[in-house]
Amino acid sequence: MPSETGRILIELFVAYAAARSAGEIATRLRQPAVVGEVLAGVLLGPSLLGWIRPDITLETVATLGAIILLFQAGLETRVSDFARVGRVAVLVALGGVLVPLVGGYLLLASLGYSVAASLFGGAALVATSVGVTARVLQDTGLSTTREARIVLAAAIIDDVLGLLVLAVVAGIGRGSVSILHVGLVALEAAAFVAFQLFVAPRLITHGARYVERLRIADAPLSVALTILLGLAALAEASGLASIVGAFFAGMMFAETADRWSLEERTRPLYGFLVPFFFVLAGVRVDIRVLAQPGILWQGLGLVAVAIVAKVVGCGFGAISEGWRPALAVGFGMVPRGEVGLIVASLGLSLGVVTGPLYAMVLLVTLVTTIVAPPFLPRLFRNARFSPEV
Amino acid sequence: MPSETGRILIELFVAYAAARSAGEIATRLRQPAVVGEVLAGVLLGPSLLGWIRPDITLETVATLGAIILLFQAGLETRVSDFARVGRVAVLVALGGVLVPLVGGYLLLASLGYSVAASLFGGAALVATSVGVTARVLQDTGLSTTREARIVLAAAIIDDVLGLLVLAVVAGIGRGSVSILHVGLVALEAAAFVAFQLFVAPRLITHGARYVERLRIADAPLSVALTILLGLAALAEASGLASIVGAFFAGMMFAETADRWSLEERTRPLYGFLVPFFFVLAGVRVDIRVLAQPGILWQGLGLVAVAIVAKVVGCGFGAISEGWRPALAVGFGMVPRGEVGLIVASLGLSLGVVTGPLYAMVLLVTLVTTIVAPPFLPRLFRNARFSPEV
Repeated sequence: MPSETGRILIELFVAYAAARSAGEIATRLRQPAVVGEVLAGVLLGPSLLGWIRPDITLETVATLGAIILLFQAGLETRVSDFARVGRVAVLVALGGVLVPLVGGYLLLASLGYSVAASLFGGAALVATSVGVTARVLQDTGLSTTREARIVLAAAIIDDVLGLLVLAVVAGIGRGSVSILHVGLVALEAAAFVAFQLFVAPRLITHGARYVERLRIADAPLSVALTILLGLAALAEASGLASIVGAFFAGMMFAETADRWSLEERTRPLYGFLVPFFFVLAGVRVDIRVLAQPGILWQGLGLVAVAIVAKVVGCGFGAISEGWRPALAVGFGMVPRGEVGLIVASLGLSLGVVTGPLYAMVLLVTLVTTIVAPPFLPRLFRNARFSPEV
Repeated sequence: MPSETGRILIELFVAYAAARSAGEIATRLRQPAVVGEVLAGVLLGPSLLGWIRPDITLETVATLGAIILLFQAGLETRVSDFARVGRVAVLVALGGVLVPLVGGYLLLASLGYSVAASLFGGAALVATSVGVTARVLQDTGLSTTREARIVLAAAIIDDVLGLLVLAVVAGIGRGSVSILHVGLVALEAAAFVAFQLFVAPRLITHGARYVERLRIADAPLSVALTILLGLAALAEASGLASIVGAFFAGMMFAETADRWSLEERTRPLYGFLVPFFFVLAGVRVDIRVLAQPGILWQGLGLVAVAIVAKVVGCGFGAISEGWRPALAVGFGMVPRGEVGLIVASLGLSLGVVTGPLYAMVLLVTLVTTIVAPPFLPRLFRNARFSPEV
């Protein structure tokens, strides 16, 4: 009688054991653990061994891992840290949206893809998946550097801009762009971000004594986790990524984190749940679709554009920081993730994007996820810890 | 576009927020938090509001919660603690298996149920679900008392005995009992328990320095969690409950728990994951099936037998400890859970158990889960902390 419980436990055991072993091996090879975890996912997934499929069990724990990861990053970020890098972050985000969009469009159009398909392909290169960079910087203790803060802030703005690009491109795919719809999307996202930046953290600071009067065990952590789940769900419902909500949930508690030892208490959750997110990222990639000749070469071309465009676009936005920090920020913004796949899926469902183009976007998420991490610790090595007061 | 991630997050948010709020309310009413959590599950589940269904997302986090709960209990239990209560625990387990089995059989037979149905009904009352008691004792700091250790040890033996009862009863339901099969089940379970008691803890003590040489972050916790998932899966695969494997995984690390602060590091996982287990216990119960007149009364009769039989059977086994500790142990063994439902489902699928009888077993799990906790802190108040050296 193979029970549901048994199936769940076997799957999670295989995924976790593989993630941790691969992480250990990667670390010994002087690579970030995350690279090992993603490759373990590719190995166990449908691409090769086929032991694990991207099902709801894995998706549930991976979702929790993703929000815990960005929650931890948020805990280390006060609103003032955010304000300090605001101007640069906006430039980084703008450059990181425009250059990949245009670059991707131009490459695909020159390869003979239709205007609409090329637009979708370009749009799929826009959204940075900040999880990978956040993870590497957390693991190497570099997450409170000024460069790290720029990457985090830019990734948030990037997500909002990406939402607008998606709204426009989807309109083009459907045959008509509604300015009203795009405006509403922009307004909703901006209202959410503004509320989270200027109102939400004060709610916690003022409500701290009520939290401390609660009688359940570990009240502050429980309240924080409840808000984390709620904001992540809310962000996702408003079209932003759940991890943006999770980051803001962390920021809400940044001022009270020390008093409640929240960073320390989140760490075991981090160690248990985050690896599942990166294993799933690997499991999701089915590298067999790239076996068709021609596709692989076009795909590698798109990968090259995806990498160079982010490094150049974001680096240019951060050039006022000096060339080395600009390069660190640029590389930090390289990893792409689900959002690109969501854009490509949407194009697929609208009949604009073809199977091979979808596979190419998949290759972009895989390669950018694995390529950036090894460079990050070196690039961030001379980064300045902030606030430098 | 309501994404899968969004659905997962909303569901987990609703479940967690409800669990924590209900836990807070219960605590203020001087009741164990777990009672609030289960009732929150009943309220949110198909019985009443219908906001949450028992799906794989909830099942995944609840499964993790259950194994973390028993892992924590195992961390506090050295093999020597187990040995010290061994004789009493065997008697408690035997009494707690025989009296409910016979009592349930007699009640149902006298109500006119067939021999086979009455046997299944009795067998469904056998297995104690130790999670509830473990949770209450953890939350009240009473988990290292001698009485608590007796309950934990007896619950393990109870699970092994319950497995044998199930094998026999299933054989009767199918029309033939294979002595060989029952013997093999017994042997497999006994071998697992013996290995876990006498070999496994030494493996960790001897392997400690290899664990400490690992380079991944938080290596000891990662290794412990990997073994936890693996043993829970293995226990489930050998027909035991996953939480039995989880408890043994904790025991493996009992000797090194202090050195690696494992108890402290497990606590955040406990606070995040365990409430889901009890919410799901409530969500699983559909109280509407009890609306048929007659069924409710018969069900309450079965509930009464389930409670009295465990208190008497287990209490009698522990009577050498004095009547008060015996009563504490008896009440600690009252809660029933999924194993009873699994027995009843099996009977249902064999055509022996009818829908109403299944509903009655469901009522037993709900009532015994909610009724026992309020008494436990009082009954365990004078319990002795052990070892008393």
